[in-house]
Amino acid sequence: MSLYEVTVPQMAKMLNNMKAWMAEAEQYAEERGFHPDNYLNARLQMDQFPFSRQLQAACDTAKGSAARLSGQTPPRHEDNEATFEELRARIDTVLTYLAGFSASDFDGWETRLVPLPFLSGKGASAASYATEFALPNFYFHVSMVYGILRHSGVKLGKRAYIGGMQIVDL
Amino acid sequence: MSLYEVTVPQMAKMLNNMKAWMAEAEQYAEERGFHPDNYLNARLQMDQFPFSRQLQAACDTAKGSAARLSGQTPPRHEDNEATFEELRARIDTVLTYLAGFSASDFDGWETRLVPLPFLSGKGASAASYATEFALPNFYFHVSMVYGILRHSGVKLGKRAYIGGMQIVDL
Repeated sequence: MSLYEVTVPQMAKMLNNMKAWMAEAEQYAEERGFHPDNYLNARLQMDQFPFSRQLQAACDTAKGSAARLSGQTPPRHEDNEATFEELRARIDTVLTYLAGFSASDFDGWETRLVPLPFLSGKGASAASYATEFALPNFYFHVSMVYGILRHSGVKLGKRAYIGGMQIVDL
Repeated sequence: MSLYEVTVPQMAKMLNNMKAWMAEAEQYAEERGFHPDNYLNARLQMDQFPFSRQLQAACDTAKGSAARLSGQTPPRHEDNEATFEELRARIDTVLTYLAGFSASDFDGWETRLVPLPFLSGKGASAASYATEFALPNFYFHVSMVYGILRHSGVKLGKRAYIGGMQIVDL
């Protein structure tokens, strides 16, 4: 199994799922008569990142994982989104970036070391980086986006979280 | 990369991380003067599963993933935990179960089909089951456990979520 398979296409799918939750959130805002920008500062606890920052972190983890696991430097995004609409555009920017990757960009991952941005001079094997950091961190922020929307009243279910799967007949 | 590597050891680590969050939650309960069993029904929204059910689902996904990805039938657990202490014991039961697996139990995963419990007559390749269902579902419930504790006031940080990593010098 390639490291590409377990990261890029699945992260892209989850980002698309997130856009579907945002569409539900928009409809809920319309029904209740509030502006969808109100979601940006919603949070589960006062000392935890709000919706906007969780969404940006999910985007950054997807972007950074694709780049670092293939030995590239991720593009920098400014985290200056001030509206619900701009957050959606941020997701689209990352989806376009991810679409530029193919499995062959990951060639050599078996022996690649990935520097840890939060620990100077230290790194992890690409496999370990993906399994122990990229995936758990990505799903954390995606789940916080989901959880904050649920906490804010938006009706979402597990099917909307998981999204489509490659299903076969038994 | 083996399917075992991306699932069992990492899921076991996250379950151990979860036990560390529970220890923090217990300490917070003591400081504030409430019983830790109060966490069991805490939830982010009235129509979402509470703490106890999220924790059971995380355990079940870990147990079920190890079993199904290696072609076995997972043991059944009754979901009858009524105390914080019993939930901790549930995690320990699953940790013991996971410790019984080794990479060789997954042999043949490249061609294994995994039945989907929620879709009769349908399944997914083991690789797809792991990437598209087991990991996202596991991290979802783990993150909800974390999110519910944060929402309930327990002070946790990203380091407690990620836990230890296999780090190397660059």
